[in-house]
Amino acid sequence: MATKKTVKPLLGPRDERTLGQLTGLADGVVAAADKKRDPHMDIPTRALSNVRYNQSKKILEMGANTTRRQLFNLSQAKSFMQTMLVASGTKQLIDQGKTTSIRGLFYLLKHTIEGTREETFADQSECDPVIEDTEVLLGSLREEMHLYAQKRGDMVGQLVLTDQGDEIDCSRMGSGGYGIPSIVEPETIRFKKCDARFVLHVEKDTVWQRFNEDKFWRKHKCILTHGGGQPSRGVRRLLYRLHNELKLPVYCLLDNDPWGYYIYSVIKQGSINLAYESRRMAIPGARFLGLRSKDFERCKLSDSVKINLSDTDRRRAKQIANYPWFAKKKPWQVEIKRMLANGFKLEVEALISKDISYVTEEYAPARLKEKDWLD
Amino acid sequence: MATKKTVKPLLGPRDERTLGQLTGLADGVVAAADKKRDPHMDIPTRALSNVRYNQSKKILEMGANTTRRQLFNLSQAKSFMQTMLVASGTKQLIDQGKTTSIRGLFYLLKHTIEGTREETFADQSECDPVIEDTEVLLGSLREEMHLYAQKRGDMVGQLVLTDQGDEIDCSRMGSGGYGIPSIVEPETIRFKKCDARFVLHVEKDTVWQRFNEDKFWRKHKCILTHGGGQPSRGVRRLLYRLHNELKLPVYCLLDNDPWGYYIYSVIKQGSINLAYESRRMAIPGARFLGLRSKDFERCKLSDSVKINLSDTDRRRAKQIANYPWFAKKKPWQVEIKRMLANGFKLEVEALISKDISYVTEEYAPARLKEKDWLD
Repeated sequence: MATKKTVKPLLGPRDERTLGQLTGLADGVVAAADKKRDPHMDIPTRALSNVRYNQSKKILEMGANTTRRQLFNLSQAKSFMQTMLVASGTKQLIDQGKTTSIRGLFYLLKHTIEGTREETFADQSECDPVIEDTEVLLGSLREEMHLYAQKRGDMVGQLVLTDQGDEIDCSRMGSGGYGIPSIVEPETIRFKKCDARFVLHVEKDTVWQRFNEDKFWRKHKCILTHGGGQPSRGVRRLLYRLHNELKLPVYCLLDNDPWGYYIYSVIKQGSINLAYESRRMAIPGARFLGLRSKDFERCKLSDSVKINLSDTDRRRAKQIANYPWFAKKKPWQVEIKRMLANGFKLEVEALISKDISYVTEEYAPARLKEKDWLD
Repeated sequence: MATKKTVKPLLGPRDERTLGQLTGLADGVVAAADKKRDPHMDIPTRALSNVRYNQSKKILEMGANTTRRQLFNLSQAKSFMQTMLVASGTKQLIDQGKTTSIRGLFYLLKHTIEGTREETFADQSECDPVIEDTEVLLGSLREEMHLYAQKRGDMVGQLVLTDQGDEIDCSRMGSGGYGIPSIVEPETIRFKKCDARFVLHVEKDTVWQRFNEDKFWRKHKCILTHGGGQPSRGVRRLLYRLHNELKLPVYCLLDNDPWGYYIYSVIKQGSINLAYESRRMAIPGARFLGLRSKDFERCKLSDSVKINLSDTDRRRAKQIANYPWFAKKKPWQVEIKRMLANGFKLEVEALISKDISYVTEEYAPARLKEKDWLD
């Protein structure tokens, strides 16, 4: 079917750059063929062994190891061709000025190879690692390859931005908020006016609703976001941009449990599985505002709100305590040890037992005033 | 701790009504005590045996059965008191003009009863059914009791609304959209200007992003929503209001699988578990635009996009075919039988194999033009 282009895509400098890399990749294959050499590519190795914590930049980084993928190698031919296929699909998306999900790209590329019964991809799980390979190969974020992830999270606060030219005043978004897009690159999202002094990122939409209903962001001149649990790529990238471009401190209000620690760790240092994204997603300066293991006593909570730690919780807590960015920080060791000693975890919602708005009127303001957070 | 009220809550007619019912409930107990009678309440029975399909209204309804709950009955005393506790928590929320999640209400009410080691609620799973009992007892939606559910789903399109006084132009929401709130009652959300001729509701955020990127809603003058899978209560209630107050047809674009059929069924007839909400949530006029079992042939899709049905899929499909609102409709029987005969299911994203924008430029417009949908 012929592609109908209703909008002539404008290629920004970033698309030009990604296209250049895609073309370079293809040119490399052609050049090798011309010289009668075996076409190959050297893909940075995406394995734990090739991930290291950069102490000075304070983010996770990939090491220098690469894995060679050759066309004329029986065990590598298929993945070589799959990588070229993903690259060509990406080029098609950029050429058309369109974006899709990784599921969409899978369907776009999945077909039976002519004259055979061989499928290009058996299923999504075969396509996903090739997409990640292509990301590291091109040194591009997935979003630059016009691929979007699941959309999750909302934002309100003292910020005016434009999203594809539409002006969005985040201080006039009612109870619903602005739904954070999956792709928040500067080509789409531009910050126009910011009266915020910081960003408060909370774990759950239910907590976000409490802060928004109490108009915390107006009183404290801030931006309020949530990620619906583990924040999506769009949320992480947006926090990164707010922190780096607008120089806003980012405070995280998460549950006092290993999952809350882990969410903070991903926001701050990046994800171990996708270490190559850290340099454009991780926020080493992000601060952990709470909940803290000492809050049960500090806030005089009742026994009713305790949730016993499971064996999995204890194991996860010990793993997290050993992460290199926590291992050498005494306050974090104290924090995690105390949770283990407590034997229970605490949800942010537990503060409601004090008062519905205790978290917005007492807890968060006090921590911010006392500068009492973990780094 | 003293509650600080920063905003004096304005009680709308709906809050007055809910408060009246709460007071009535409490007065009943006092009146019984005054007359030295055993306090009791008759709670409409929330069981499958008390759910019926109303053929003329075309929604699920609760029957007339009630279950008596008495204070002076050893097996009922605890749940009697829990019900009163939930009612008093609700009253507190309305009095303060605040809302919270069911998790929040749980923490608000959970405490050790003075002089005992007895907890008011052991855990959330003990509190949730009592909240539902209170809903049916009061004849109130959960949202009218100031309780919000998870927030999920976004909206864009030819609609201007106000949300807590903030004007939101859904045609100027960029790529992110307006995050649909959990509570969308008329006290919060008012429709101001609507140029839309219909609502297109899609299952997934990824499909929604495709339709929004192609500005389908502008070309076809509609409102575009998604529910991130099974739509949240807020999304369902908003669709209900758009359909009933603005008289907009609601078209659903879902996967061609039992889960897609089920999502449609819940939007249209209501949920079996929460039948009492149907009269303010269910949209009997909602239409199933696709995907259809005949689409594999009609759209000339390739074998690559087929996903084999599992045994669970087959069992679910047969159950759904027997739902009273599908059982007597020949087109639905044909539809479901054909999926079973196909032996495979199809995701909306499968249409991308034709072209990235096939779904927005060909599929949906053709179905709407031909009026080819299932009722």
